[in-house]
Amino acid sequence: VAVTAHQLPEWLEEALSVLGDDGPESPSRRLSQQLGFLLELDKAKQVYRRTYVTDGSRRENDAEHMWHATLAALLLAEHASEEVDPGRLAKMLAIHDIVEIDAGDAFIYDQKAALEKEAREKKAAERLFGLLPADQREDLTALWQEFEERQSPTARMAAAIDRLLPLLMNRAVEGRTWTEAGITADRVLSVNAHIENGSPRLWQVARHMLETAVRDGVLQEPA
Amino acid sequence: VAVTAHQLPEWLEEALSVLGDDGPESPSRRLSQQLGFLLELDKAKQVYRRTYVTDGSRRENDAEHMWHATLAALLLAEHASEEVDPGRLAKMLAIHDIVEIDAGDAFIYDQKAALEKEAREKKAAERLFGLLPADQREDLTALWQEFEERQSPTARMAAAIDRLLPLLMNRAVEGRTWTEAGITADRVLSVNAHIENGSPRLWQVARHMLETAVRDGVLQEPA
Repeated sequence: VAVTAHQLPEWLEEALSVLGDDGPESPSRRLSQQLGFLLELDKAKQVYRRTYVTDGSRRENDAEHMWHATLAALLLAEHASEEVDPGRLAKMLAIHDIVEIDAGDAFIYDQKAALEKEAREKKAAERLFGLLPADQREDLTALWQEFEERQSPTARMAAAIDRLLPLLMNRAVEGRTWTEAGITADRVLSVNAHIENGSPRLWQVARHMLETAVRDGVLQEPA
Repeated sequence: VAVTAHQLPEWLEEALSVLGDDGPESPSRRLSQQLGFLLELDKAKQVYRRTYVTDGSRRENDAEHMWHATLAALLLAEHASEEVDPGRLAKMLAIHDIVEIDAGDAFIYDQKAALEKEAREKKAAERLFGLLPADQREDLTALWQEFEERQSPTARMAAAIDRLLPLLMNRAVEGRTWTEAGITADRVLSVNAHIENGSPRLWQVARHMLETAVRDGVLQEPA
């Protein structure tokens, strides 16, 4: 809790002082923790991913990606193989990459980065969600862990959406991310095949899109 | 429906063709409309607002702002003056600025822009939400209209969050947006006073923050 207080800029501490401080569980203390967390979230707007926005002008960042995925959750939940609640799916995707504020974005085709990713992200979750009041910290931590473990229908569908969007965006810019990094079709297929666990329908479309991308020369077969 | 089909890039139409077409209400037709809408949403990442990200390096865009507001909804709903459902509040804020893809961002202190804003945004909502299957189109259109009318507790709290975030971010960069545009304290107070209708607590904090901003010289009194 002392750590949280240090996170707040002086002007915000002073603004909040108008509410007084009625103790650890009070609305004023909760609001102070929540606003500290929300200001910290602003940093997700500066965590850049490999994916380009569809006009190709620049890479997208985590805040934009989480918003896009939240909307996809609200709209595509009906295509999940098992029934999932669209609101809960949307919430999961709205928070799924917050840990990257501390841990950074690990390119999904970078196997070395993947090895250290888990420990880094766990530490990041402790610090970032730790800024919140206990009930919200526990709620968001549990939801993020569920996403990472990919064992529930909601988490499997969230993972499917999290992969489908960059595939579509990457195809829209003629496979630029794949080409730049020398990623071949076999790896794209194997890394994304888990989309089928969340939604066989989405995977059917994604796989066909990858096949035609190979035919069209925007995705290479292995040498 | 014919219009929707034209929105899809050829590679996506071909990818979707693997599902066949089982008629207007079928999962394959719905997915086609949903993915067309989701690709269109990518453009919100290029609609820039006046607000700067908190490190001051650039302005923020609508996608980032909608994500930030979605998280604020999930966390701050408890501070609303009347009980609101955090999930519904989050959904409202996740979609509230989508119309700006067509209508552009109108600076809140620009009274001339505000006059034409309503008609432009209505047309934008028809085109953009019109890309979706009928049930989702109606759902999102109704939610957006509720937000715009600011008559329900959820809409009043959404409007409060939508204003609180730029105030905090603007204070974090020493009032840069206000200074650049020559906006004085009286106008900031009057334009944002409706925060109180959604949450007296948030307005108490915001107002105190604005008062100290004047004292600290980052917000000017009128001449």
